[in-house]
Amino acid sequence: MSKEKETERGGGDQKKLLMGVLVNCATELKLLLTALLILCSVATLLQFLPSRFTISTSDLRFCISRISTTATGDAATATAIAASINQVAPLISPAVPPPLPDPPRPSIEEEKVLDNGIVKRAFNPHGAAAYNFISMGTYRGGLATFAVIGLSSKPLHVYAKPTYQCEWVPSNSSASPIMSGAYKILPDWGYGRVYTVVVVNCTFSQPINADNSGGTLFLHASTSGGGDTNVDITDRFEVLGESPGSVDFNLFTSKPKYDYLYCGSSLYGNLSPARVREWIAYHVRLFGERSHFVIHDAGGVHPEVMEVLKPWMDLGYVTLQDIREQERFDGYYHNQFMVVNDCLHRYKFMAKWILFFDVDEYIYVPPKNTIKSVMDSLSDYNQFTIAQMPMSSKLCLSADYGRYYRKWGIEKLVYRDTKKGIRRDRKYAIQPRGVFATGVHMSQNLVGKTTHKTEGKIKYFHYHGTIAQRREPCRNLLNVSRIDFEKTPYVLDTTMRDIAWAVKKFEFKMIGDRLQHTKQ
Amino acid sequence: MSKEKETERGGGDQKKLLMGVLVNCATELKLLLTALLILCSVATLLQFLPSRFTISTSDLRFCISRISTTATGDAATATAIAASINQVAPLISPAVPPPLPDPPRPSIEEEKVLDNGIVKRAFNPHGAAAYNFISMGTYRGGLATFAVIGLSSKPLHVYAKPTYQCEWVPSNSSASPIMSGAYKILPDWGYGRVYTVVVVNCTFSQPINADNSGGTLFLHASTSGGGDTNVDITDRFEVLGESPGSVDFNLFTSKPKYDYLYCGSSLYGNLSPARVREWIAYHVRLFGERSHFVIHDAGGVHPEVMEVLKPWMDLGYVTLQDIREQERFDGYYHNQFMVVNDCLHRYKFMAKWILFFDVDEYIYVPPKNTIKSVMDSLSDYNQFTIAQMPMSSKLCLSADYGRYYRKWGIEKLVYRDTKKGIRRDRKYAIQPRGVFATGVHMSQNLVGKTTHKTEGKIKYFHYHGTIAQRREPCRNLLNVSRIDFEKTPYVLDTTMRDIAWAVKKFEFKMIGDRLQHTKQ
Repeated sequence: MSKEKETERGGGDQKKLLMGVLVNCATELKLLLTALLILCSVATLLQFLPSRFTISTSDLRFCISRISTTATGDAATATAIAASINQVAPLISPAVPPPLPDPPRPSIEEEKVLDNGIVKRAFNPHGAAAYNFISMGTYRGGLATFAVIGLSSKPLHVYAKPTYQCEWVPSNSSASPIMSGAYKILPDWGYGRVYTVVVVNCTFSQPINADNSGGTLFLHASTSGGGDTNVDITDRFEVLGESPGSVDFNLFTSKPKYDYLYCGSSLYGNLSPARVREWIAYHVRLFGERSHFVIHDAGGVHPEVMEVLKPWMDLGYVTLQDIREQERFDGYYHNQFMVVNDCLHRYKFMAKWILFFDVDEYIYVPPKNTIKSVMDSLSDYNQFTIAQMPMSSKLCLSADYGRYYRKWGIEKLVYRDTKKGIRRDRKYAIQPRGVFATGVHMSQNLVGKTTHKTEGKIKYFHYHGTIAQRREPCRNLLNVSRIDFEKTPYVLDTTMRDIAWAVKKFEFKMIGDRLQHTKQ
Repeated sequence: MSKEKETERGGGDQKKLLMGVLVNCATELKLLLTALLILCSVATLLQFLPSRFTISTSDLRFCISRISTTATGDAATATAIAASINQVAPLISPAVPPPLPDPPRPSIEEEKVLDNGIVKRAFNPHGAAAYNFISMGTYRGGLATFAVIGLSSKPLHVYAKPTYQCEWVPSNSSASPIMSGAYKILPDWGYGRVYTVVVVNCTFSQPINADNSGGTLFLHASTSGGGDTNVDITDRFEVLGESPGSVDFNLFTSKPKYDYLYCGSSLYGNLSPARVREWIAYHVRLFGERSHFVIHDAGGVHPEVMEVLKPWMDLGYVTLQDIREQERFDGYYHNQFMVVNDCLHRYKFMAKWILFFDVDEYIYVPPKNTIKSVMDSLSDYNQFTIAQMPMSSKLCLSADYGRYYRKWGIEKLVYRDTKKGIRRDRKYAIQPRGVFATGVHMSQNLVGKTTHKTEGKIKYFHYHGTIAQRREPCRNLLNVSRIDFEKTPYVLDTTMRDIAWAVKKFEFKMIGDRLQHTKQ
């Protein structure tokens, strides 16, 4: 312990003594002493780190093997910081450096033989294999409610009962933090791998940031001892900051900006620019001016795909979200369940309807209907699902011989799979204000009614296996109206082929001919 | 931070200036400045923590969200420490304290809109849900080989390819550390939960610590990016220390201390002291003087069970391992696969044979055989398995009416299940020197031969459902030689009953009558 410190406290004689010593020292000695002091300080500090770390970086607490106490609150923070200052104080005080300590080495718990002869075994945990929580996005669901979308360790949720809580800390430091209730939704149907998807709904008992003076939302994520029953750690971290004046409270009650918003799933692999070009032109035409498309790039939007999206981005129809970073975290299919939930909550108040389907799928409403008439007729339902028309990814028309490579996918792939008795995936649309979490084929967490009776009103054509291949799809040219191919019955269905010309015309009108030479 | 220190370093002009300031200051101001300085220093330091932490506490590196580089070696340590000193230096230097910084707050990665209009999303990981590795024990397998037994995150092993390496650091600091090859065995048949069992075999290309001068074995456990592909962290930690002169190298070649060693699985629940009393007396008698019993207490050895084990512990027949600590880590059935592997490697050179079975199972060799004659006849095999004789846990003899509660379990439970066509579990014995990892029903990692043809030589009677209940087992008293009970055929089998008197006599001879009043 330090003499200077002692001096400060002791004063008088000791101080004079110390000054005498200092005056007699050569510059070299001073330098040496200073260097030693720094070195010792570092070493001393290292020994204090584990306990100090509990203060600020909640992330780390779990990993510190030696922790045996739990700290679940934030009330502890103030006292912890105070304590930390006390702990660090000795670091600064030593005047005469003590001998160099051994290099810091994490202590390991050793087994020992107890008095009664029992061998008390020790278990030493090291490192970390999975995060407690990985946040992707946090969004308001209204005046007093928020949704936090992220990933969490899968076995933690299978074998333990992790819990969540939100805390609102107003910017105005004289106002007190407020805690919310919270419930978690696991929307990925048990599909997780290292990670599973979690949507945390935090609802407060009062409006939050009602005066728009700003503040910060923190998530408290408790492991409930999932990885170590001795360490029921709560990680507390910022998930949303609202700067003063930034919240538009009218948003929650005003008419949404878009009628139809498309939330795409994770795009991955070597996608065909030609197919993406056709898909986006088709759907902008279908959904019209008050529509928007959110595309999630998990690695599939390579430069040639970017090229076909760019014109539509420039026109304001497409938002491209680069989500490649999530590939770091091993979840089900490029974390698609997280991505669609992020999209739902991010655009909850910006669209009357949100639709979920894939880029090899084409929504279709029969003649004499419009997308508006259909959607309006279903507006009593907060969710409806859409039946699939599976199309061959290989069978084309002999009539197109010699020029099929110039035709669009929906133009040349004209044979529809009519195999019966197969349960086919459906896609769906929701009115997002009543939805708390969503899936890939439907939402199971919503208020209001759901209907599956949409036949005759709306369906989708599915060109499975065409989107992630770069070679010409046509393999067989046929001139029949029905055929059994690879044990599957197909019929000629030119529904989409008949629209292709109108889509091409629309594309030309909107963005000119710049995508005309798009490759397969 | 202390002003005296500044004086030490700066010297000259600065010194005078500072002294001037000091002289003019009121004591209160000094105190205030000191407090502010300390506070700022702490805050400054906190910002440096993440990178500094990579130095000493490998455990923590993974958890630090912001780390994007990997550090797999120990060569980095020296430079890292040097760097850390440089980083910490600013803490000590400022003479005039800077304005109070904001309270430390972990930075979160924010999404941003790129020049091309793409929204680049951010994912912020927090906390930790499972350890990378939990070590239970590390044992020599010979002059140049070691086995490290522990737990590791289950999804890490299912979805990633974590790798291991050992490093021997001699106590003699002039000798260089040596790295080994290593292979891992996952012996728990895919049964893991949050954790799975790992046996790491580290074999060096040269004898280790051959001069018995001591040293330390470190395990390097690499996650291979299992929880975050950006962070391929290697945790390096001590698993075995050998103090100078502590290794008995003769052990590996000398005759083992015991002929027969019993490795028990995790004991858990409200075990019957009466049944344990009978079991241990029976088996000490069977296996004889050169035998030993290792019992693993995962919570099942409550005081009354301890009471019946104590006499045998005092005689040196029983070692009780308290493994309750492993309950912290959620693996398959109280981590029994880890426990038996620890036992195997811990006693590898101390027993000719190691047997694995449970405390409701009684090994039996037919008359005119001894355990020695049977085991010797099987000594060409490094492993043999033992067939099960399933006994009823309820059916007793009418002849015992009125006094069955005083009889031993093996004495009164005399009906054997003879249902055919059921695959029944087997138990087993090994010659441990040729075995690298073991299971509950047999080892799949050994050299040498295995035989299952042991019928007529050795078998075991299994009183399933008797060990973890505290009430009298007899429910039905019968006086028939065969019966169908609860759709299962039973026959009268008094094999064990006939030995009971001899076991009781043996127990009395060995430990007197002190267990006579043991409760069910």
